[in-house]
Amino acid sequence: MAALREPRGVQGDEALRKDAVEQATRHLVQPWPYAGSAGAEARTLIGEGDGIYITDDAGHRLIDGPAGMWCTNIGHRREEMAQVMYEQAMQLSYNTPWYTMNAPSAELARRIADHAPGDLSHVFFTTGGSSAVETALRFMQFFNNVRGRADKKLILSRGGAYHGSTYLSASLNGRPRDRDWMDGADDLVVKLSSPDPFRRPKSLSVEGFCDALVEEFRSTVERIGAERIGAFVGEPVQASGGVILPPNGYLKRIREICRANDILYVSDEVVTAFGRLGSVFASGDVFGLDPDMITFAKGVTSGYFPLGGVVISERLLEELRRSNHPDAMFAHGLTYTSHPIGCAVALKNFDILENGLLAHTREVAPYFQSQLRTLEDLPLVGEVRGLGLMACVECVADRESKDPLELDKDVGKRIDAHCQELGLLVRPLINMCVMSPPLVITRSQIDDLVSILREGIVRTMEELRKEGMWNG
Amino acid sequence: MAALREPRGVQGDEALRKDAVEQATRHLVQPWPYAGSAGAEARTLIGEGDGIYITDDAGHRLIDGPAGMWCTNIGHRREEMAQVMYEQAMQLSYNTPWYTMNAPSAELARRIADHAPGDLSHVFFTTGGSSAVETALRFMQFFNNVRGRADKKLILSRGGAYHGSTYLSASLNGRPRDRDWMDGADDLVVKLSSPDPFRRPKSLSVEGFCDALVEEFRSTVERIGAERIGAFVGEPVQASGGVILPPNGYLKRIREICRANDILYVSDEVVTAFGRLGSVFASGDVFGLDPDMITFAKGVTSGYFPLGGVVISERLLEELRRSNHPDAMFAHGLTYTSHPIGCAVALKNFDILENGLLAHTREVAPYFQSQLRTLEDLPLVGEVRGLGLMACVECVADRESKDPLELDKDVGKRIDAHCQELGLLVRPLINMCVMSPPLVITRSQIDDLVSILREGIVRTMEELRKEGMWNG
Repeated sequence: MAALREPRGVQGDEALRKDAVEQATRHLVQPWPYAGSAGAEARTLIGEGDGIYITDDAGHRLIDGPAGMWCTNIGHRREEMAQVMYEQAMQLSYNTPWYTMNAPSAELARRIADHAPGDLSHVFFTTGGSSAVETALRFMQFFNNVRGRADKKLILSRGGAYHGSTYLSASLNGRPRDRDWMDGADDLVVKLSSPDPFRRPKSLSVEGFCDALVEEFRSTVERIGAERIGAFVGEPVQASGGVILPPNGYLKRIREICRANDILYVSDEVVTAFGRLGSVFASGDVFGLDPDMITFAKGVTSGYFPLGGVVISERLLEELRRSNHPDAMFAHGLTYTSHPIGCAVALKNFDILENGLLAHTREVAPYFQSQLRTLEDLPLVGEVRGLGLMACVECVADRESKDPLELDKDVGKRIDAHCQELGLLVRPLINMCVMSPPLVITRSQIDDLVSILREGIVRTMEELRKEGMWNG
Repeated sequence: MAALREPRGVQGDEALRKDAVEQATRHLVQPWPYAGSAGAEARTLIGEGDGIYITDDAGHRLIDGPAGMWCTNIGHRREEMAQVMYEQAMQLSYNTPWYTMNAPSAELARRIADHAPGDLSHVFFTTGGSSAVETALRFMQFFNNVRGRADKKLILSRGGAYHGSTYLSASLNGRPRDRDWMDGADDLVVKLSSPDPFRRPKSLSVEGFCDALVEEFRSTVERIGAERIGAFVGEPVQASGGVILPPNGYLKRIREICRANDILYVSDEVVTAFGRLGSVFASGDVFGLDPDMITFAKGVTSGYFPLGGVVISERLLEELRRSNHPDAMFAHGLTYTSHPIGCAVALKNFDILENGLLAHTREVAPYFQSQLRTLEDLPLVGEVRGLGLMACVECVADRESKDPLELDKDVGKRIDAHCQELGLLVRPLINMCVMSPPLVITRSQIDDLVSILREGIVRTMEELRKEGMWNG
């Protein structure tokens, strides 16, 4: 084997850096662009990653506050991950899953099933979260076709939800802006309220709000008819919607209504699985849920390789196998289903999580949450909420009205800009800043993160006051 | 850096092999399963790959006839690919494309644009073919929403097409069996005839068939109204439909109708791009087409990493940038859009293609085609057709009627079973065998492939005769 070259930063090469910016503005379409700059936009060029840090093109080191996109759970530059990619690529880089299979995917399916709640025994692998949600939904459609319930296909989703970026998965999304200019399968989806206690009706206690949400769900099923509803899809914690933790007991009560009405409960754990809340899956271990399917992605490879999947209940597969249509084909699968390198990478990631990182996450999470909550003394901050190593700082113009609208609509972006100068990449979401650092973060690194975020918010407050946009 | 271990075959470990089969039947859901065996099925376990070969769990070496799933273009076990994965994983394994970017994706976009026909200047990266087609279609919907043409959204597709395995992309599929038990967005899609000269009406010459296809397209646009049709999506060669080469001139004539009616022409090159037909893109270099968008995947990384994308016309992006809605957001993007490792892998793959492999492909393709056509002397073979390094052997019960239906419906699977014994993995498609080997295949390896395929077909003929299913 040839000697491997040492990694070198893009920082070291001024020409390459300029080139990248120039080429991006001429040849790249960035995700989520505005029409006015589509295909003509560069973003902060990142040259390297190490642990919880990434380094931008100016050589400036930043804490990776969102862990990439909720995914870099084990941190950047893990040599064992690079090595397993090398080894598996030299062993078997690809095999068609249509006619063949590979050992890493079978082993990974077994390990995932070992950690899944209830009778969730089987895994279908995809390339990420959107294709995982697509798989769960197409499976529900197929399942009900085979059972002779072709009308039982509607999907229940909620405000504040984020489930993907394909036509059907995106139809479930319920965040502001996601659907303003985008089409969706609106005839297949029924939207319910976001279970967001912070923005509950003023007249309701959190318990009363929970009752109202459950009643909304129950009465919606009654109104539409359970015979027309195939599935409910929900994140246990609405992640991209702003780390929205539902009221206690809400998830289990929704689960029971689904069970009673033969509605498949799909727990979307693309963000929460593989360590973010200290467990492999949060549905069972954190929330005591036993869904019919769990979707996962992101943390399963910590972003090193595009992989996702659905864990499916043994009961559902058994019902298929015993149906009157054994020759019915579930015509679904991707070229990269059960990719040998992806599965080998996920197995190594699993080792890292189990050999201490899950325990570390559970250990530092309370400190992370309590330190972030100290920011609630800032008048711009309406609430700090979260669980495990995911949290959200929600800004409001006024704490009484909780109104974010009077503020500059992109206050999160202002905070992010200040924090980047100070050494922290934020994930800004309109008036919110989401924090979900790599799980390897230490207490002293948490201190750094919180103090930079505080300073970023303070500078933003000063700026808003100076511009006459806020007088808090 | 720790020393890298040498790859070892799964063959060497009997226990691991048994385990993999056992775990798969208990915990894995294979793609495209039948209801009767869903979640309870193992497939041929592959332990390693090398060049054009893969080795199964019995230690039996097979020519990888379909190149994985039309993807392993540069062949298995390319050390430079393993090395670039290692290096990029140690440099930057992931960055969020929402707020940041990386140098490999910008460089790759530029190189792809350099090879794309017409004004196709910009690339949006995804994780494979399905998400590439989803991106093209969601872009069309967004584009027409921004232009105030919200009713111009219907999609034209064809029989014999294969465009993916998400809800919307799969709605375009037109092969038998794909949609028997699966739902689709049928209100968004209009299906036209497959441009398959082999199965044209008997009364028509190939030229007359071409005229009829073009007339069907033109009259369909007239009947529905161009103001309601957003896009046509078509493979230049229908790959999974059975390597269907349209009549000469057909593609350009369809393209002109699209241009005249403001219908976006999406050329789906998931199979044909990156070398299969001897060029980076076949649309321009082989067929003289200048589509509005080209989708690609598979060969871009030769299956080493899930990557795909869409190349988009500068004209379309320019129209967006100059629209009256600069703040309209194209709310679309995947966690793994512009993945740094995927793009670095694709750059290395590009080097290999440009440094001789495209030239080699063009050199051996005529030999591959002419040798396969010698199989037409076998009475079970109705036609051998193909282009570049993709071909299809279509079996018929009777050459006059071309009827495949009287044969055992899975004659392709029978041929595959015999060929696997003889050392060749076939891609069976009902009554067809598709051949699309790694592009590194040599003339003597082509001889091996063709002679095994001949013997597999001969044995199948004997078997069918013996079972009284065929008397050809």
